Amino acid sequence: MEYFPAPGRNHLFVPGPTNVPEKVIQAFSRGNEDHRSPAFATLSKSVLDGVKDLFKTKTATSFIFPTTGTGAWESALTNTLSPGDKIVSFRLGQFSLLWIDQMQRLKFNVDVVDCEWGAGADLNILNAKLAMDYNHEIKAICIVHNETSTGVTNSIPSIRALLDKHKHPALLLVDGVSSIGAIEFKMDEWGVDVALTGSQKALGLPTGLGIVCAGPKALEAAKTATSPRVFFDWADYLKFYKLGSYWPYTPSSQMLYALRASLDLIFEEGLDNVIKRHARLGEATRLAVAAWGLKLCTKRPEWNSDTVTAVVVPPYINSLDVVKMAWKKYNLSLGVGLNKVAGKVFRIGHLGFVNELQLLGALSGVEMILKDIGYPVVLGSGVAAAAAHLQKKTPLISSRL
Amino acid sequence: MEYFPAPGRNHLFVPGPTNVPEKVIQAFSRGNEDHRSPAFATLSKSVLDGVKDLFKTKTATSFIFPTTGTGAWESALTNTLSPGDKIVSFRLGQFSLLWIDQMQRLKFNVDVVDCEWGAGADLNILNAKLAMDYNHEIKAICIVHNETSTGVTNSIPSIRALLDKHKHPALLLVDGVSSIGAIEFKMDEWGVDVALTGSQKALGLPTGLGIVCAGPKALEAAKTATSPRVFFDWADYLKFYKLGSYWPYTPSSQMLYALRASLDLIFEEGLDNVIKRHARLGEATRLAVAAWGLKLCTKRPEWNSDTVTAVVVPPYINSLDVVKMAWKKYNLSLGVGLNKVAGKVFRIGHLGFVNELQLLGALSGVEMILKDIGYPVVLGSGVAAAAAHLQKKTPLISSRL
Amino acid sequence: MEYFPAPGRNHLFVPGPTNVPEKVIQAFSRGNEDHRSPAFATLSKSVLDGVKDLFKTKTATSFIFPTTGTGAWESALTNTLSPGDKIVSFRLGQFSLLWIDQMQRLKFNVDVVDCEWGAGADLNILNAKLAMDYNHEIKAICIVHNETSTGVTNSIPSIRALLDKHKHPALLLVDGVSSIGAIEFKMDEWGVDVALTGSQKALGLPTGLGIVCAGPKALEAAKTATSPRVFFDWADYLKFYKLGSYWPYTPSSQMLYALRASLDLIFEEGLDNVIKRHARLGEATRLAVAAWGLKLCTKRPEWNSDTVTAVVVPPYINSLDVVKMAWKKYNLSLGVGLNKVAGKVFRIGHLGFVNELQLLGALSGVEMILKDIGYPVVLGSGVAAAAAHLQKKTPLISSRL
Amino acid sequence: MEYFPAPGRNHLFVPGPTNVPEKVIQAFSRGNEDHRSPAFATLSKSVLDGVKDLFKTKTATSFIFPTTGTGAWESALTNTLSPGDKIVSFRLGQFSLLWIDQMQRLKFNVDVVDCEWGAGADLNILNAKLAMDYNHEIKAICIVHNETSTGVTNSIPSIRALLDKHKHPALLLVDGVSSIGAIEFKMDEWGVDVALTGSQKALGLPTGLGIVCAGPKALEAAKTATSPRVFFDWADYLKFYKLGSYWPYTPSSQMLYALRASLDLIFEEGLDNVIKRHARLGEATRLAVAAWGLKLCTKRPEWNSDTVTAVVVPPYINSLDVVKMAWKKYNLSLGVGLNKVAGKVFRIGHLGFVNELQLLGALSGVEMILKDIGYPVVLGSGVAAAAAHLQKKTPLISSRL
Repeated sequence: MEYFPAPGRNHLFVPGPTNVPEKVIQAFSRGNEDHRSPAFATLSKSVLDGVKDLFKTKTATSFIFPTTGTGAWESALTNTLSPGDKIVSFRLGQFSLLWIDQMQRLKFNVDVVDCEWGAGADLNILNAKLAMDYNHEIKAICIVHNETSTGVTNSIPSIRALLDKHKHPALLLVDGVSSIGAIEFKMDEWGVDVALTGSQKALGLPTGLGIVCAGPKALEAAKTATSPRVFFDWADYLKFYKLGSYWPYTPSSQMLYALRASLDLIFEEGLDNVIKRHARLGEATRLAVAAWGLKLCTKRPEWNSDTVTAVVVPPYINSLDVVKMAWKKYNLSLGVGLNKVAGKVFRIGHLGFVNELQLLGALSGVEMILKDIGYPVVLGSGVAAAAAHLQKKTPLISSRL
Repeated sequence: MEYFPAPGRNHLFVPGPTNVPEKVIQAFSRGNEDHRSPAFATLSKSVLDGVKDLFKTKTATSFIFPTTGTGAWESALTNTLSPGDKIVSFRLGQFSLLWIDQMQRLKFNVDVVDCEWGAGADLNILNAKLAMDYNHEIKAICIVHNETSTGVTNSIPSIRALLDKHKHPALLLVDGVSSIGAIEFKMDEWGVDVALTGSQKALGLPTGLGIVCAGPKALEAAKTATSPRVFFDWADYLKFYKLGSYWPYTPSSQMLYALRASLDLIFEEGLDNVIKRHARLGEATRLAVAAWGLKLCTKRPEWNSDTVTAVVVPPYINSLDVVKMAWKKYNLSLGVGLNKVAGKVFRIGHLGFVNELQLLGALSGVEMILKDIGYPVVLGSGVAAAAAHLQKKTPLISSRL
Repeated sequence: MEYFPAPGRNHLFVPGPTNVPEKVIQAFSRGNEDHRSPAFATLSKSVLDGVKDLFKTKTATSFIFPTTGTGAWESALTNTLSPGDKIVSFRLGQFSLLWIDQMQRLKFNVDVVDCEWGAGADLNILNAKLAMDYNHEIKAICIVHNETSTGVTNSIPSIRALLDKHKHPALLLVDGVSSIGAIEFKMDEWGVDVALTGSQKALGLPTGLGIVCAGPKALEAAKTATSPRVFFDWADYLKFYKLGSYWPYTPSSQMLYALRASLDLIFEEGLDNVIKRHARLGEATRLAVAAWGLKLCTKRPEWNSDTVTAVVVPPYINSLDVVKMAWKKYNLSLGVGLNKVAGKVFRIGHLGFVNELQLLGALSGVEMILKDIGYPVVLGSGVAAAAAHLQKKTPLISSRL
Repeated sequence: MEYFPAPGRNHLFVPGPTNVPEKVIQAFSRGNEDHRSPAFATLSKSVLDGVKDLFKTKTATSFIFPTTGTGAWESALTNTLSPGDKIVSFRLGQFSLLWIDQMQRLKFNVDVVDCEWGAGADLNILNAKLAMDYNHEIKAICIVHNETSTGVTNSIPSIRALLDKHKHPALLLVDGVSSIGAIEFKMDEWGVDVALTGSQKALGLPTGLGIVCAGPKALEAAKTATSPRVFFDWADYLKFYKLGSYWPYTPSSQMLYALRASLDLIFEEGLDNVIKRHARLGEATRLAVAAWGLKLCTKRPEWNSDTVTAVVVPPYINSLDVVKMAWKKYNLSLGVGLNKVAGKVFRIGHLGFVNELQLLGALSGVEMILKDIGYPVVLGSGVAAAAAHLQKKTPLISSRL
């Protein structure tokens, strides 16, 4: 079954879901099995430990929910907070917006800090809020590490530094959906209390796993948090962890085998090498954008994201036409602009199991599309700029030295 | 990666997750794709329509959540009810027990009707409760159609009849996790307001989809229900249905292609033929149990389940030993007894894409295991009884006439 | 794409192609790769060594041809013999018949020893022929180890003993297509000069690999054999072995990865355990046949095959009807009777990655079919006889002790 | 199992084996089945017919051998010719060389016409030979349509024209391994008597099928050809075609399902569109090569191949270093130079299921590699030249208009 078939491979450059390595497809291409057998417990322990390595945490407890990032958000919030609790959160793109919408609908008291789309979290405002919060009414800071809609990466260490400076006990909840496993993320070192990601991003899996790590302070908070929760309740998992059977309800064995395969790929390459690869691809993409004479949606280099680049089109172009032409002519899937930047921005995801030549192919495509729709680009210009960077920075593949 | 490998095929006879047909494995063995492309909308519409056929409803709206049955439960409850609302529910096995636990933790006022494990819902009690509920304080009747832990199928039409008799407006919420697609289920005809199932049962998929159909009355109730919800909120889906993009957050394309393949298999065989096959396999299993001189956990034939048979072992045997020996010696996965019937009962699932010879192989295995652990069974006795029934009742395969 | 679909799994009990383990399917579910890369050489060496372990040889050289068993035959003959060379060969079933037909068409001088179908090779005749062959005109003895059409296993050590007794230098060429990897086979110990098998039998792969091991004497003979050959020429392989690039033409990477996976499964289980499992399943099948009151095609127990059982039906039954009914009603694939035993015999393969309960399911099916077509069988009788044997002989699965 | 793993996808640009579409991988990711069932006959007929459409023949008979291109060659020769028969053949690259080697070893009398590597067949010589062959001693003209080692496409219609001009009855045998399904090929219109290809080229399958179409004159010749043959004998197939069971020995069901899927993809795209796509990609590649200031191995534009481009490196560079660096740094698989052009040429395959952006990614890679190894290329130059062509010539994807 194939709808709208096209010759050759689809070039998947949305910022998630991402390319699935063949090894991962092989791993999940299997029938069901009894999740109460000893075999399954062995697998379960292995991946629960593995994701902690990915989050760079030794102190947190990991949970793997059969859900999406949206569900992982809900799990992070409802396990640690009670209705009415005050949260400070930054609205600077579509995903932070959606998370805040969730917080509000779950009846938390959200102190929303609106920032320009394309900018990072305004830390001065946070600093001021923390400074004035004598009674520690702020229970949590919720931040999206990498705002996928605008290509903005926030500095989590800076937020931790502010909390420490003010000796503020608020929990730090971080959405790492489009960062963890691709951009530097150090849960323990950064003092993150809850961090979360989804399977279809850096891990290169199908959608379906919401992965949450909860540090000791978060687990403690969960004991008194009164938000109603069942499906997303950590307590149910903890009960089964003690029993050694791990799952309060049926997990997807296919997805867990796939997760094991994905983690193996990441640690074989080396997590730090994975991060360097994303940095290399991100910079190459930005160099191409500059060569085309276009601007990033991201306002300042410090916020540049290494997993997704949001490109602003000139006013006389509708960015949706870029995305449509990409799909219709070159079998290239790009991300559209969302909400405030709809029509103004298109996005190139460079996240997950992707390498230099895949990116250069996509950048060539973008060049041709820009020309197709009337933007005066010099074909080859962006690719040349990107290639100049990649040719210098790409190391030999370590297994092939 | 294979833990505890064994020669030959695993015989998967737990009552879910069930055997995945090769065609379904093929369908989900694929990479990711952009869920915002026109291709994906075409697929989405196709499966959202398809599951309505499976539920035998034309009036309901279908929702496919990236979750499990537990999540589907939560979706059914939180979209239609408000905290404090009175629910009547029957506790007669592990899954009805867990659903009731969920209801209580979600702050509903559950009027629990405890029934013997092995019995069906006590309709006299329901009748009495409805008769006395002059003010219509009962907002919902929640019932597990097929209680997987005891092999009990409840009569949904009888419950509908009682509601109608009393002209009672309570919503009828039905867990069809181990029934829909295998046992007769007629959502519209039976006046079910919300029905739900999970992907890993009759549909023979991996775990990961919670499928919910909500009738008009349920959708109306959703407009005023105040239970906090975001991930499981129908409203978010309805918004995207209108937009024609279907998904409020990233779905698993793999699972939706697999669902399409599974529905194709079911409708090619014919849903009514699927149901007849389950009836045939259920009866054959029960005949085998009788031939072994063992009793069903199910107390009366009217409650016999055609998707799972719970077998009571003699007091001198621990049913867990049956399950362990099955796995250790014959690579046969049986279901353990849960909670109240732990150690007393083992379960044979005959649910999903399974046929006569698969079942007879498993029944042979059970015979040998019974002998292995000291129960005086005559080898061949159960298989003979089952085969006598199957030989008579099994039609020629329609595609091969 | 599925022609003539049926509910549930196909029960594949033809004596090849056999059941493919899921792990093997996963291994070959992959794209193409450059067979001239270092990665491919590593894989190639690994499987070329692995098949030698399977054949129990340290002295032979292994060749893996992209062909079938028929091609492997051709390779064995043309590399070691010259047109006109005298071969002694036994015609006692369809596959020995076909091999002899090949020999004749390739212009060898075949001294055909016709034996009853169902009997093994007549060693007295061989003894006499060797005794009289003063001038060593006989260049080769060609024998099918396990005649798949009649369920007859010949004794290779006895043939070696005769050759040794007569100090006869004839090459010993053995077709191990339906034996190697399932029935005891000791290439070095038995002094076999060329042994061969196909991928779709004990190895549980798709068809497509013809695996040939040639001992030192055979390799020596290849230097002077004048049969025209190119595709099947060992010399081309040997040239590439020296270069370390292994393949004179493009091999199937998928099949070689699958072969690696299959060998891993076999050696994890233990080759001797694999052989014991086949012995157990073979005996169980024969006990079932006896319980049904039917006769084996195999004339004497010493010739009983542990990989396939040929069952003789009563004269008033056409065995083809058994096979048709199996496919049409129970999705069971049995082997038909071939050539001389067409209509008289049906065959149950119990070869490859198959276990006790798979076999018992199939035997139940055969019982029902016999009844379906009018043979007065007692349902359960054969299964009971088989199960009595299996329950006693089946060890706990070693990984699950 | 993965040897020498690398991040992201392998860029497979050897001229075969080629990229396997996901749909084809899905099609062959399946267990074995009984090749004697009615289901299998249906599939068999379907693909035997389908390949005739691919070869553009209505009069020929198709044969699908479980072998490689080398085996298909052997089948073409041995079925139509007798030892000692005179063949005229052109040696102008590695594959024509190997085929001629095969002819000689099979004892045909080959009149070898040596041409420069990089040139096409010298038709003047052929003209002369045909003119002088009064007694029609030449029994066959054997020609490689597309010489994969040098990127040379020969004109088959010109050869047919010469034969017709001289009213010469010689058979015309054409190796279409790297052309059929990618470059215009009209078996009937061009009067080709035997044409052949392999599965791992334009069809995008794994290696393992040798596909041969034999026209009426070839089939007639087969009746008297005395070359010894069994495995490759058409007669055995024809016998089974009549029986409707199609296969003289066990075929690979996986490969036949995959072939069906591949043919579906090709005919959905439209065979003529497939050919145009190859023309577009071939021209783009050649434009890139020119922009780099490098020369083609192909001596004249009329011989340019649209499936593979052989690029000559400057004398101070070893082309093997290009290929090694491609694999070691960019996970790009290029073809090495073979035999006479070893070290002097590297090859870019653009054959099969490959599209514009895949090619442009690979061309970017080649640019970077050239720079890596010291050739003064301007990064972006080749990509720009290729993109300029592709941007103009690439049509919208027909299913997505």
